[in-house]
Amino acid sequence: MSAVKAYAAQSETSGVGPHTIERRALRPDDVAIEIDYCGVCHTDIHFAENDWGGTIYPVVPGHEIVGRVTAVGEQVSKYQVGDKVGVGCIVDSCRTCDPCQQGQEQYCDQGMVSTYNGIDRHDESVTYGGYSEAVVVHQDFVLRIPDKLDMATAAPILCAGITTYSPLRHFGVKPGDQVGVIGMGGLGHMGVKFAKAMGAEVTIFTRSESKVAEAKRQGADHVVISTDRAQMKAARNRFNYLLDTIPVQHDLNPYLNCLKVDGVQIMVGLLEPVDPPLQIGALVRKRRVLAGSLIGGIPETQEVLDFCAEHDIECDVEMLDIQNINEAYARMKKGDVKYRFVIDMQSLKNA
Amino acid sequence: MSAVKAYAAQSETSGVGPHTIERRALRPDDVAIEIDYCGVCHTDIHFAENDWGGTIYPVVPGHEIVGRVTAVGEQVSKYQVGDKVGVGCIVDSCRTCDPCQQGQEQYCDQGMVSTYNGIDRHDESVTYGGYSEAVVVHQDFVLRIPDKLDMATAAPILCAGITTYSPLRHFGVKPGDQVGVIGMGGLGHMGVKFAKAMGAEVTIFTRSESKVAEAKRQGADHVVISTDRAQMKAARNRFNYLLDTIPVQHDLNPYLNCLKVDGVQIMVGLLEPVDPPLQIGALVRKRRVLAGSLIGGIPETQEVLDFCAEHDIECDVEMLDIQNINEAYARMKKGDVKYRFVIDMQSLKNA
Repeated sequence: MSAVKAYAAQSETSGVGPHTIERRALRPDDVAIEIDYCGVCHTDIHFAENDWGGTIYPVVPGHEIVGRVTAVGEQVSKYQVGDKVGVGCIVDSCRTCDPCQQGQEQYCDQGMVSTYNGIDRHDESVTYGGYSEAVVVHQDFVLRIPDKLDMATAAPILCAGITTYSPLRHFGVKPGDQVGVIGMGGLGHMGVKFAKAMGAEVTIFTRSESKVAEAKRQGADHVVISTDRAQMKAARNRFNYLLDTIPVQHDLNPYLNCLKVDGVQIMVGLLEPVDPPLQIGALVRKRRVLAGSLIGGIPETQEVLDFCAEHDIECDVEMLDIQNINEAYARMKKGDVKYRFVIDMQSLKNA
Repeated sequence: MSAVKAYAAQSETSGVGPHTIERRALRPDDVAIEIDYCGVCHTDIHFAENDWGGTIYPVVPGHEIVGRVTAVGEQVSKYQVGDKVGVGCIVDSCRTCDPCQQGQEQYCDQGMVSTYNGIDRHDESVTYGGYSEAVVVHQDFVLRIPDKLDMATAAPILCAGITTYSPLRHFGVKPGDQVGVIGMGGLGHMGVKFAKAMGAEVTIFTRSESKVAEAKRQGADHVVISTDRAQMKAARNRFNYLLDTIPVQHDLNPYLNCLKVDGVQIMVGLLEPVDPPLQIGALVRKRRVLAGSLIGGIPETQEVLDFCAEHDIECDVEMLDIQNINEAYARMKKGDVKYRFVIDMQSLKNA
């Protein structure tokens, strides 16, 4: 065990502040990582403030971790001291169930172990995330950061990136497909980049005329103002895929009607009950599909990192010092970030 | 044109009674069919009583039509006088859009022409269904009834059959899959037979303990009482597919939670808004899919007829004289039919 500096939330209303945590001693298959950068995900806020219940305080958020290997356990074969590595949302799973065997640890039958607020399968300690100096993770859940990628902008690939890449790949986006991306935040803007790189023609759906120029800058071929009835009507029956990244309640029906026969609307955001009610007729009449998708497994997280290196894709980030994390949370709640905050963990040394 | 006897609803409250209609003169590609049997679909009631709006009176319901060819147009190549044939829910479509080109006329971009209450694409006349002596249909929308099939029990294959067969095939049910069938009516009991014939292990979900024996008789390997919380909990994460045939509002969430990772719940019934609200989390957490499906195209309707002949599948029917159609409707509204009424159209001769 070793004491390390970290930023933690101590209660639902404390905000995130300095704290000392214990990192476990290296097990034979463990990798110790000094953290250089950590992306800030909206999920971090939900856990810091216990929005979903179940937060175990103190909670150290952060599951978009990039850093360098500082030590390895005696049986580690995959990584060496000095390697540039990343850790995403998952640090362990049962490894034996069907989803785990297929490299889809996020759907582990026994439940994946989350990077923070998870329970370690061996000693039942609580896991701590990336708002800290260091992290210790089993080598099988560590990703390699390709040399070509910038370390800071690579961090959000580990959650925002894989969350959008995984379903686009799984549901089979291919060149020439019409893909609509609903919502233009951290997830949405990555979805646009991936869909374009996969050869699709991409439309961004946004509520506001004021975001059209920015949507085009993000690479969208077309923009549909979702509050404009005429534009939504013109978009009907046109899309092979819709990637819905809106994290709050909204009406799904107008979007479903934009899908072609056999079109697929993929939900990666909305976790609340659907309101207004879903119209099943929209699914039946064109054999449309409404699907959900949760982050991605370890093999495909490595795949998306490599894909980003190959296609020169990076997340648009605003760099942040850890001391300003609470202001960042406040801005994120207003949707005021383009498009992902990334903490420069050097700042923790001075905290 | 020729006048033929038919049974029609004249208004929302008239019930279905004797009427004379005009059948069109043969066009070059038309087949004239003398009707022997016609299945009774719940949709017939909805149109007779204008439940969905849009009924054009008089309406002659019936889209599970079986009979024999009595005349053919000069360019008809597929059928000869005397052939045993069927007509399902579709009598025409644009034939040029992508879905039509793929043999999925039910999803025609311009809208399929329904067997009744449809508008003919050539002369804008209203189409009349199978509660009548005869029907005239373009040869491309006529099906061949395999010799091996009983004419009467084959009739419901043309709607109840194809509606359940099509999505099980499309979404890829294969030997060893766990398939749940929700609802044990005309559609549900056909779904069970198809899923079994495709090699799946089949579970029927029913609300009532009293239906367990009947469910087993239908061929179910297992039965889950959907009102029993313990049984529903034990069914969680177990199914590759759920075929949901319940035609009224019900809670989808407990069923979605019964799907494995990547499991698919197929809706062929419920057309109303979903209430209680859909929980998107149930989709996201296991990459589950909620899909709709509408009847089936002409090539796959022929396929299901041939499949039934090959696998000795027939619909369980109660035979009906046309004079008793209104009593049959009343019984169907109470769910009191095992499992499909089929009208013996000989009875029309005496009506």
